[in-house]
Amino acid sequence: MKENLSLLVDLYEFTMSQSYFLYKKKSWATFDLFVRALPPNRAYLVSCGLEDLLEYIRQLKFTKDDISFLKSKKIFSDEFLRYLRNFRFRGDIWAIPEGEIFFAQEPMVRVTAPIIEAQLIESYFLNTVNLQTMIASKASRVVNAGRGRDVIDFSLRRTHGAWAGIKVARCAYIAGCQGTSNVLAGKLYNIPVSGTMAHSFVAAFKKEKDSFLSYVRTFPDKSILLVDTYNVKEGIKNAISVGLELKCEGHRLLGIRLDSGDIVSLSKLARKMLDRAGLEYVKILATGNLDEFKIEKLLKRGACVDSFGVGTNMGVSTDAPSLDVIYKLSEVTDGAGRFLPTMKLSKAKATYPGRKQVIRQQDKNGKFIKDVLALEKEKIPGRPLLIKVVDKGNVVYNIPSLDRIRCSVKDNLARFSTALLEVFPKYKYPVVVSPGLKKLHSELSRQLMRRQ
Amino acid sequence: MKENLSLLVDLYEFTMSQSYFLYKKKSWATFDLFVRALPPNRAYLVSCGLEDLLEYIRQLKFTKDDISFLKSKKIFSDEFLRYLRNFRFRGDIWAIPEGEIFFAQEPMVRVTAPIIEAQLIESYFLNTVNLQTMIASKASRVVNAGRGRDVIDFSLRRTHGAWAGIKVARCAYIAGCQGTSNVLAGKLYNIPVSGTMAHSFVAAFKKEKDSFLSYVRTFPDKSILLVDTYNVKEGIKNAISVGLELKCEGHRLLGIRLDSGDIVSLSKLARKMLDRAGLEYVKILATGNLDEFKIEKLLKRGACVDSFGVGTNMGVSTDAPSLDVIYKLSEVTDGAGRFLPTMKLSKAKATYPGRKQVIRQQDKNGKFIKDVLALEKEKIPGRPLLIKVVDKGNVVYNIPSLDRIRCSVKDNLARFSTALLEVFPKYKYPVVVSPGLKKLHSELSRQLMRRQ
Repeated sequence: MKENLSLLVDLYEFTMSQSYFLYKKKSWATFDLFVRALPPNRAYLVSCGLEDLLEYIRQLKFTKDDISFLKSKKIFSDEFLRYLRNFRFRGDIWAIPEGEIFFAQEPMVRVTAPIIEAQLIESYFLNTVNLQTMIASKASRVVNAGRGRDVIDFSLRRTHGAWAGIKVARCAYIAGCQGTSNVLAGKLYNIPVSGTMAHSFVAAFKKEKDSFLSYVRTFPDKSILLVDTYNVKEGIKNAISVGLELKCEGHRLLGIRLDSGDIVSLSKLARKMLDRAGLEYVKILATGNLDEFKIEKLLKRGACVDSFGVGTNMGVSTDAPSLDVIYKLSEVTDGAGRFLPTMKLSKAKATYPGRKQVIRQQDKNGKFIKDVLALEKEKIPGRPLLIKVVDKGNVVYNIPSLDRIRCSVKDNLARFSTALLEVFPKYKYPVVVSPGLKKLHSELSRQLMRRQ
Repeated sequence: MKENLSLLVDLYEFTMSQSYFLYKKKSWATFDLFVRALPPNRAYLVSCGLEDLLEYIRQLKFTKDDISFLKSKKIFSDEFLRYLRNFRFRGDIWAIPEGEIFFAQEPMVRVTAPIIEAQLIESYFLNTVNLQTMIASKASRVVNAGRGRDVIDFSLRRTHGAWAGIKVARCAYIAGCQGTSNVLAGKLYNIPVSGTMAHSFVAAFKKEKDSFLSYVRTFPDKSILLVDTYNVKEGIKNAISVGLELKCEGHRLLGIRLDSGDIVSLSKLARKMLDRAGLEYVKILATGNLDEFKIEKLLKRGACVDSFGVGTNMGVSTDAPSLDVIYKLSEVTDGAGRFLPTMKLSKAKATYPGRKQVIRQQDKNGKFIKDVLALEKEKIPGRPLLIKVVDKGNVVYNIPSLDRIRCSVKDNLARFSTALLEVFPKYKYPVVVSPGLKKLHSELSRQLMRRQ
């Protein structure tokens, strides 16, 4: 997606910038991008989206055409438009790398830059992190619920447009899915692609068995037959008969797919019928409006399912289709160029001031026990999660391979309490505020209340 | 977005196609794209997405690069890949134009084409209609709830990626929103863009009033001041003081924005304070997790709000973030090239067979009273909703201007019972199945049950 997305910006970023241009041209600021509160049933987030943020920073510029459009709105001065024409991002960005686990209130991205530059990237940054971290976090839950069984992303047809379809496949793979049905995502990101067959394929032949035969003759070792177009039991029988023919010819039917009905009883029945026929190796794939809640129930009730194709509910994160992700000013320079901490004071939505870091602490077995939200300059033992990814406008971080990011999710999760992985988690991983940050927060609150 | 999206396809479309290529190369088929059931609280859908479907058909081809990728999967024959390299869509497509109102079970798109061609466009078609019709339908509800007040799309930061951000702005505008905050969408689709200011802007100045002054001096007649960064009442006072200064200078403060707290009491307070100060013309804009449910409550409780900025809940359709949109085979040719009706038989998910049309019937006052889902060849009085948009692979339909589509939504809705527009509708618009279709459905059900 090499579109020019520089205008993918909320108008107010431009209008505020024009005002900054007039009154605060020299100001620098720090913004934190973070999730205010976790969505229901989420105990953690999987950091995702950094690759696209960095690509955006690399490409960010306003073309002649962009400037003409802004000019046509008749609210921007020629001076400001000239400034935009030469705009380039010159700030620093720190971020939690993709594949790390993080929590509410922890900045996933921290931007320090001339205030206009920091402001103009807000919309794209929020949009990107919202989608990608939301989906990686959701998909991670689905993968957990599968208890080691393969989960495959089948969501393309219901994701929010083409772009989301591609990004969802990447995020789901990072979160531990085995692959995707989305061929373009497979091509762009080198993700394994897979699929089965549709009801329409079965219906396009006079008899179900004819459709199965045509398919397995095309893909003798790769066929997964959909058995519920007419009658599931008959469908399984037809699949077995085709599977036995294949066996005689030295091939193996890969699997059958159940897409409706009571998956628990049908999968048990299918397993029994397949085993009796000597087709123990034929896998059972379940699909049909699955999510982590349903998968957990299926497995608790003993469903004989080897893998899950998960679509809509993972691809749009149905139970929480957005993150409460925000981008808040935490410091701004005064006339002398000194950074002064700041914060939002309004009751329910107050924020933490100052330039911050997240420190993850572990016990002697390497298990993570606590995160500390601290001021950057505080000396707190542990591993800092935010690393520098952009230095004076230059991207200084190389995104690891997708498989490496994927591994790091798995490795990271293994070091938290398993209580984090439950479908209905009661456990809350401790994130504490450092003494220094607490002090600054209460001092500044008082100050701001006095000042207003 | 002129990306090559031809590979934005679920893998099984290609594998099924290779099997069709071997066993049913000459077959033609008809597929219906429709919504199985309306999401909760929805009484109607607003057709949206056709523009992108037609653009896709225009551009659809598999490049050398695409073919290399498919070849690398080692499941496709050279013959089939050669076929794909020369692929072009040659079929007919009928569709319900953008801006029409339609209902569950009514085909929004009907495709008749060589079976491979009809199959390969499935993923993109579903993906596109799912997003765009879902959002237009949701936004239409939000606009209804506003009872004539302006509703503006502020959703960019939470839509599912860049593409969704742009499409949501277009769909929301079609549905009746006044504009969008999304500058790129404004540029691409000529949608009015608007915005206010962020809390960070206020926090970037030492005093709230300084921030207001800087802003209004930049935009003397276009400023909407955000008053809840510290204390709302003080914020309103500061806005009034700035508004009065502007007034002396011959300018008008455009509005204030409330983003938190009890919007009902705060908006009443603000209105009173503004009016007393002689600023009756200053508008009140409300934002903050709004949707049709909250807007209706606010207005019922007498909130003094002139316009609503609606973000996340409209932009991701939070309460129903996907449509149950499907693409089902309804007929396929036999060996002699005759189209034979077909259908899916599985219990909960049965479909209607044959080539269909939707007929909308009206009373003598022009009010719509009933839709009839009929076979195309049946003679049923009324207006057919599906029109031909692609003929033998050529797009033969010109998308009307956005404003015209937007008007048609309004005009169409005005001809239905107002009960359709309620936030919690109890009314169900009648969609009946024609005698011919009923007969075909029951005959074919029996036939299929016998055959399997």
